[in-house]
Amino acid sequence: MLSSRKKYIVNGNSGIKTQIQFADQKQEFNKRPTKIGRRSLSRSISQSSTDSYSSAASYTDSSDDETSPRDKQQKNSKGSSDFCVKNIKQAEFGRREIEIAEQEMPALMALRKRAQGEKPLAGAKIVGCTHITAQTAVLMETLGALGAQCRWAACNIYSTLNEVAAALAESGFPVFAWKGESEDDFWWCIDRCVNVEGWQPNMILDDGGDLTHWIYKKYPNMFKKIKGIVEESVTGVHRLYQLSKAGKLCVPAMNVNDSVTKQKFDNLYCCRESILDGLKRTTDMMFGGKQVVVCGYGEVGKGCCAALKAMGSIVYVTEIDPICALQACMDGFRLVKLNEVIRQVDIVITCTGNKNVVTREHLDRMKNSCIVCNMGHSNTEIDVASLRTPELTWERVRSQVDHVIWPDGKRIVLLAEGRLLNLSCSTVPTFVLSITATTQALALIELYNAPEGRYKQDVYLLPKKMDEYVASLHLPTFDAHLTELTDEQAKYLGLNKNGPFKPNYYRY
Amino acid sequence: MLSSRKKYIVNGNSGIKTQIQFADQKQEFNKRPTKIGRRSLSRSISQSSTDSYSSAASYTDSSDDETSPRDKQQKNSKGSSDFCVKNIKQAEFGRREIEIAEQEMPALMALRKRAQGEKPLAGAKIVGCTHITAQTAVLMETLGALGAQCRWAACNIYSTLNEVAAALAESGFPVFAWKGESEDDFWWCIDRCVNVEGWQPNMILDDGGDLTHWIYKKYPNMFKKIKGIVEESVTGVHRLYQLSKAGKLCVPAMNVNDSVTKQKFDNLYCCRESILDGLKRTTDMMFGGKQVVVCGYGEVGKGCCAALKAMGSIVYVTEIDPICALQACMDGFRLVKLNEVIRQVDIVITCTGNKNVVTREHLDRMKNSCIVCNMGHSNTEIDVASLRTPELTWERVRSQVDHVIWPDGKRIVLLAEGRLLNLSCSTVPTFVLSITATTQALALIELYNAPEGRYKQDVYLLPKKMDEYVASLHLPTFDAHLTELTDEQAKYLGLNKNGPFKPNYYRY
Amino acid sequence: MLSSRKKYIVNGNSGIKTQIQFADQKQEFNKRPTKIGRRSLSRSISQSSTDSYSSAASYTDSSDDETSPRDKQQKNSKGSSDFCVKNIKQAEFGRREIEIAEQEMPALMALRKRAQGEKPLAGAKIVGCTHITAQTAVLMETLGALGAQCRWAACNIYSTLNEVAAALAESGFPVFAWKGESEDDFWWCIDRCVNVEGWQPNMILDDGGDLTHWIYKKYPNMFKKIKGIVEESVTGVHRLYQLSKAGKLCVPAMNVNDSVTKQKFDNLYCCRESILDGLKRTTDMMFGGKQVVVCGYGEVGKGCCAALKAMGSIVYVTEIDPICALQACMDGFRLVKLNEVIRQVDIVITCTGNKNVVTREHLDRMKNSCIVCNMGHSNTEIDVASLRTPELTWERVRSQVDHVIWPDGKRIVLLAEGRLLNLSCSTVPTFVLSITATTQALALIELYNAPEGRYKQDVYLLPKKMDEYVASLHLPTFDAHLTELTDEQAKYLGLNKNGPFKPNYYRY
Amino acid sequence: MLSSRKKYIVNGNSGIKTQIQFADQKQEFNKRPTKIGRRSLSRSISQSSTDSYSSAASYTDSSDDETSPRDKQQKNSKGSSDFCVKNIKQAEFGRREIEIAEQEMPALMALRKRAQGEKPLAGAKIVGCTHITAQTAVLMETLGALGAQCRWAACNIYSTLNEVAAALAESGFPVFAWKGESEDDFWWCIDRCVNVEGWQPNMILDDGGDLTHWIYKKYPNMFKKIKGIVEESVTGVHRLYQLSKAGKLCVPAMNVNDSVTKQKFDNLYCCRESILDGLKRTTDMMFGGKQVVVCGYGEVGKGCCAALKAMGSIVYVTEIDPICALQACMDGFRLVKLNEVIRQVDIVITCTGNKNVVTREHLDRMKNSCIVCNMGHSNTEIDVASLRTPELTWERVRSQVDHVIWPDGKRIVLLAEGRLLNLSCSTVPTFVLSITATTQALALIELYNAPEGRYKQDVYLLPKKMDEYVASLHLPTFDAHLTELTDEQAKYLGLNKNGPFKPNYYRY
Repeated sequence: MLSSRKKYIVNGNSGIKTQIQFADQKQEFNKRPTKIGRRSLSRSISQSSTDSYSSAASYTDSSDDETSPRDKQQKNSKGSSDFCVKNIKQAEFGRREIEIAEQEMPALMALRKRAQGEKPLAGAKIVGCTHITAQTAVLMETLGALGAQCRWAACNIYSTLNEVAAALAESGFPVFAWKGESEDDFWWCIDRCVNVEGWQPNMILDDGGDLTHWIYKKYPNMFKKIKGIVEESVTGVHRLYQLSKAGKLCVPAMNVNDSVTKQKFDNLYCCRESILDGLKRTTDMMFGGKQVVVCGYGEVGKGCCAALKAMGSIVYVTEIDPICALQACMDGFRLVKLNEVIRQVDIVITCTGNKNVVTREHLDRMKNSCIVCNMGHSNTEIDVASLRTPELTWERVRSQVDHVIWPDGKRIVLLAEGRLLNLSCSTVPTFVLSITATTQALALIELYNAPEGRYKQDVYLLPKKMDEYVASLHLPTFDAHLTELTDEQAKYLGLNKNGPFKPNYYRY
Repeated sequence: MLSSRKKYIVNGNSGIKTQIQFADQKQEFNKRPTKIGRRSLSRSISQSSTDSYSSAASYTDSSDDETSPRDKQQKNSKGSSDFCVKNIKQAEFGRREIEIAEQEMPALMALRKRAQGEKPLAGAKIVGCTHITAQTAVLMETLGALGAQCRWAACNIYSTLNEVAAALAESGFPVFAWKGESEDDFWWCIDRCVNVEGWQPNMILDDGGDLTHWIYKKYPNMFKKIKGIVEESVTGVHRLYQLSKAGKLCVPAMNVNDSVTKQKFDNLYCCRESILDGLKRTTDMMFGGKQVVVCGYGEVGKGCCAALKAMGSIVYVTEIDPICALQACMDGFRLVKLNEVIRQVDIVITCTGNKNVVTREHLDRMKNSCIVCNMGHSNTEIDVASLRTPELTWERVRSQVDHVIWPDGKRIVLLAEGRLLNLSCSTVPTFVLSITATTQALALIELYNAPEGRYKQDVYLLPKKMDEYVASLHLPTFDAHLTELTDEQAKYLGLNKNGPFKPNYYRY
Repeated sequence: MLSSRKKYIVNGNSGIKTQIQFADQKQEFNKRPTKIGRRSLSRSISQSSTDSYSSAASYTDSSDDETSPRDKQQKNSKGSSDFCVKNIKQAEFGRREIEIAEQEMPALMALRKRAQGEKPLAGAKIVGCTHITAQTAVLMETLGALGAQCRWAACNIYSTLNEVAAALAESGFPVFAWKGESEDDFWWCIDRCVNVEGWQPNMILDDGGDLTHWIYKKYPNMFKKIKGIVEESVTGVHRLYQLSKAGKLCVPAMNVNDSVTKQKFDNLYCCRESILDGLKRTTDMMFGGKQVVVCGYGEVGKGCCAALKAMGSIVYVTEIDPICALQACMDGFRLVKLNEVIRQVDIVITCTGNKNVVTREHLDRMKNSCIVCNMGHSNTEIDVASLRTPELTWERVRSQVDHVIWPDGKRIVLLAEGRLLNLSCSTVPTFVLSITATTQALALIELYNAPEGRYKQDVYLLPKKMDEYVASLHLPTFDAHLTELTDEQAKYLGLNKNGPFKPNYYRY
Repeated sequence: MLSSRKKYIVNGNSGIKTQIQFADQKQEFNKRPTKIGRRSLSRSISQSSTDSYSSAASYTDSSDDETSPRDKQQKNSKGSSDFCVKNIKQAEFGRREIEIAEQEMPALMALRKRAQGEKPLAGAKIVGCTHITAQTAVLMETLGALGAQCRWAACNIYSTLNEVAAALAESGFPVFAWKGESEDDFWWCIDRCVNVEGWQPNMILDDGGDLTHWIYKKYPNMFKKIKGIVEESVTGVHRLYQLSKAGKLCVPAMNVNDSVTKQKFDNLYCCRESILDGLKRTTDMMFGGKQVVVCGYGEVGKGCCAALKAMGSIVYVTEIDPICALQACMDGFRLVKLNEVIRQVDIVITCTGNKNVVTREHLDRMKNSCIVCNMGHSNTEIDVASLRTPELTWERVRSQVDHVIWPDGKRIVLLAEGRLLNLSCSTVPTFVLSITATTQALALIELYNAPEGRYKQDVYLLPKKMDEYVASLHLPTFDAHLTELTDEQAKYLGLNKNGPFKPNYYRY
């Protein structure tokens, strides 16, 4: 039913262009679409550190590696075996990572503290399906602290940090996930979260829509008790809107992907830094004086352009939308068609959400040593398939870096095989993940506590007030001091002193 | 009925915070609110040029100056006397100004050319009430070229350029306006536009709502034939929304103030330049190294902050909205309460749309030579009234520059008496006016040609496609080349190749 | 002897390219070269203020205007008549301007305070020839406070502020200067400073070299008692180096034009702001999206490019020096030949110090409405003479703005007739003048107090320690706190804790 | 004789503050100072690539690893055994790396082409002691192509790329170097370069002064035939100036460290990028909104500040030099003493060239999670030794990242143990190395071909014309087009059309 090939595209896509309708993905919901990942995979300290990795490795590399976790008998120190992870013994190391993440997620910790007394999630039974990382663990333990019971599976077969999963299992969270699951394992884990005797979820937290899909298909009756779905990926949101259009959505759903704060951080602010990071780590190039063309001037393109301009690159922009095009002009970038500059540029960056933006014809005309990469959506923007022809030679020069060599010796430098540079070759700062996780937690609280009738069987954006609250929880990180309206001013502006402060159409 | 004092506030306010509800202005529509002006007063060449001014002056200073235009008998060269301007003999000089403006408004000229064949405004009878400048003349003559008949009055008793009004009258436009109208003149002129035998308007173009108000009050039956209102000011839009809420709006109205392109140019891009210009022209100060606090981080605040940071100032920001506050942080500005920095800053700039943001207490604590100015809304942001106390001495050191002197000798430098700096002490580039005028023209075309039922008796935003069209008409100015979607790409994105390219909630 | 035409070029030139040898100006010293002015003319409050100007005007426009000051009998309130100014009665108004300038020149005031006790200029008899402005007055009164006696003339026939001259005369300074001197007046004033019974100067402060020239020519014996010359203009310095080369310099001279602080402020920092100011005041243009070519990437060019880039312009650079060219590349500017971009740019700015950088051929190829201006040196960079041909029409559209119109209707917009934009159409901030004046004062102190033998009959740069001292006196303006070396650190670095901190070749 | 501890400081220092006199290093020349490294270690493709590394590893990890290269018998394919490298069989892989480097060093390749016909180094016998990397290989082969014979040793016991050394040996270059030499090996290798029968060097290319030192000590007579020394490190230059002062320098030496181009690229441009890269790679932090203090506003500090400001950090600066301090102010940075901000900042970066700039007292006051790193000189700037006390716990969390933990749980994040961040945790772009290598080649040509008497027994800076030539050779990389002076312009400026274009004191 599901192509397992698709499961292997780990870092395959982004989810940044929420406004785009994927018209050629008009699959019905029960045809599983290409699994679309997230920007939000953070580098774990344990993965990247030689030192700490070796200590982790001592567990990972142990002989029972060969055994599938499904075949192991494991118990945590309290005697529970309601979980399935790679190795429960890695718990201590995972705990340390969670503690470090806690320090970098003050908003979630503040939420934990503020809402702990009132336990706004008391009675909530949340089933979750997300990447399982230290940051997710901080989210789960926050949900627990607010009163919820949680069961969790991974939304990606490769992204689970085994030691974090172990730490969660050790703390009593029923977690079903390990790095390197098979297709079959993937669905088995999800099923183990949902299909439990004496426990039925009343909230769903999903990332990609697979969990929602599974329940729709296998346990449709379960929705009777479910108060809502919180979905954070472009793909999952897209599937929800399709369900809604088709009249098949039977509970309220919250689209947290499009909240202001999350969008700005996932796209503009994060990409402003990760474009530089991704290019440096892969190519060690110098930015000063380089000619760059950025295809697309949405939030991602704006971030890329600003960063490269600041580093002394000469940046050209292509656009299809005249408003964004005019913004590019006013921000000091020459607006061109790709063909006009393709022979002269040193770097080509796609941020369009579109497909075949860079074609074989463009690739043929690029100069020697031109670097080509994708910061946009999925792996469709560069027509990489067109480079898999006999006359071209591929040479892998580093991880994530291929030289594609033309018969005349011309080389182009293709990064991450056209997949997302920032996901493949950079990392997502914990601060960005903190914003996402806090948004998810607030959306769960809102849906769970909303009075009857506030939300119907539809897809909702996060209420602006909550969006503002997420932002306010992150201000202390910057020692930032918000001004409060006086009564007189609030009256003058016709605003509540606690917000929301802007109408829904405000553009920030 | 109307306080004439209010008419004397010429440059009194901005209209930039469209999202704000002016709760304490809950006057009914037939109580005329404080007349709120626009950002869009451009310096006329004739006003600022010594050389050309003197030639203009020869007309202006002529002996008939003493006579009210209402008492003069004037005819244009074709024998028509259906107008009332200062001096029809100034027509030639005004024509030259219009020609120069035409060169700087290529979008309107392109529209004139493109739509001239089909005459989309054939049959339209437009009554207008706006500032009367060379740029407005280009708009009026474009409307004429597209088939419309127009009658026009000024929306401000001071802003009319007499020579431009003369040129329009000479060309056959019934224009009723001069610089220095009295309150009574003001309404007389409007009435002369509306109350004509054998001519009844079917479209209204208003700036501030006075024209609309007059018709509502005096000729309510006229609305039966009116197809729509196009309104471009914050105040006028506010009044329309109130009418709509009260169920009294009896024709469709188009709010062109909140179109994307207009907002970005009126606020972000325009203020990025005019904050520097306004400060330089009034104070000749050096920006490098100066400490500045900017109150408010909306579009105007963002523009001011970006410009001053680029010039080497150290910028602090105050905000009430946590989302904008977080944006300020990520853009590299310390977010503070005004009190924290008020003693140390060299410049205080308000961009909030709020009132009493800078209070007497703040003013008391500022250091010697601190410059205080307002880029935001109206003249409410700085509590200037609190400075009119006996112990403080006011000293006018230049036009638009007052020193307010404390008993201990401390001086603060107050610009434009707390009114809008960019309107009082800077100019609005023709390019920005071009965007506004093009938007108005397109809104008139849309409303006039809309099939029955598309628009109801409500206030509408400009359709996104038209917003995009305004932008596209301005791209040639920058020799900018837009990329077109291929059929395959359009299908992939689920978009029409000609736009609109974004959903309504897209934030740009 | 001297072409009076040359005296009429008031704002004619800059003095920024100190490194350049004016090979075709190999005139001997007693042939007076084209008088080269300074960047440092600040807008007087009284000149630009409508309000204050009218009060000043009441004096200026009085009937005795017709009488030459040389023919008037004037006395100050103490009965002295050893001065010659326009109208001694303007003294009070000039005093107010001086007081305002004092507030903006804290460094000089600090120097006055610090050195007042020890009177380092006790016994100094300084004859000066500079622009006579409020800032100069603060310098003169500082020199007085430090013990010096001063006599002063103007270095430019147009730049004297009459009310400031009156205030100085009222305070007892023998000042000989007024606005609108004739050529003959000019030398008469200088002579009156020098040729006094019972008083002989022992120090010269010159700006342009005219005073030095006069003494050389008329009173060569005077040099026997003169301890040194302080010269601040490019032209004057150039003349001194020529004297030195020719072996005719008979006293030590200090070239203060090339001190680090003065250079950076006069060129980089000042031009970064004045390019924007000059363009705005003359054309009201919008910078965003404009294509600009800047000829020359020295300090002035660097300042212009940085400012325009920050405002959203697309900037191209031309250079002859490969090192500066490489800097332009690394700073993100495309390095081109002028011909490559001349057809497409909206603005052409020259900052080369060279001649005929923009030729008629370039002007012929520019597009309609292209703006052309000079930020560099003198009035040689744009070949304006080539535009004075019969087929081209000149149209003065504003003060300092000419449209030059080609037979086909193309117009180019020429600013300040090719003279320095920043001097003609902008103002120099008092802060920059403060740096210059402080440098002059320190140079006078140094030369006057230097032990026998430290300086020979040559031209010297300001000692680095003094350069550093000028900078340190200006830090309090920015509330900037300098770190002091510990003894251990000073020893480690081999430095004196009080500086100098850098070797002479350090590039900053 | 030599402390082997010192040899182990591989990445220990920078060489950026050439103006500083290391007063407490007044060791005589024959006491070997702390070996000071370079910024210029580039990441080899083979080192960082997983794929290619494994292939290299197959050689490296082979069994003969245990044998010292000194004990092996190796021959290249032509039968020569006049070299000593790790494994001659790695030659092919090294050759590929050299070829890739050639593509990124067009200036050297152009020099090779231009000067090949005339063989300007014919007869030159160059002994060299530098890092042995692919870039060095391109330099050596260029020297060969220009006619020189070369013998080469490594200047650092760890930095040699074995496969590159093998490729050079295979091509016939007598290379004596491998990664992981002992102290004894180090000097043995140098000796093998110098002490050859029938071959005596006439030129020295040194990096650090060890080679020069060895010849001084062991073969002083060799200097009779030596035409000159080219030295590129701060340390080596320092030692040469000391020799010169002591009157012991017996040949001309060229200080290439202080050429304009090299300085700007090694410091300003390179650090502008590497500060971001170094921080990202070690900490994955987000820059936006972070408060950073940069100690020192020289070229390195300027680069760091500009980059961080552009990324949205709030940057404070400390300085001891009032001129640099004023520059920081004008560039928009608050100038503070470290104590004023130490409690609030998120990152502390040192760029002073000084010692103990960050003391234990500062470290005690930093807030939790503060990141501390050094971009300046050597490893002296942060008093790391003060952190090696029993009450503090060190925890290595990643390679180059230590958490130092206070008893109360506070952690500071120390990068690279206080050694140079950009050398330890980032890479140097090949473009920067290309500038250095080209400068070295030109200096060798100049010294070798200089007519008798041009250079005496002293230390010289690179002639400005050569500095300009280095720059011009790198312009084609940016497709940059230099403007040429016309004859008339050259005459006007008093310049030769081919340069040099600036006086020696020009500051760029």
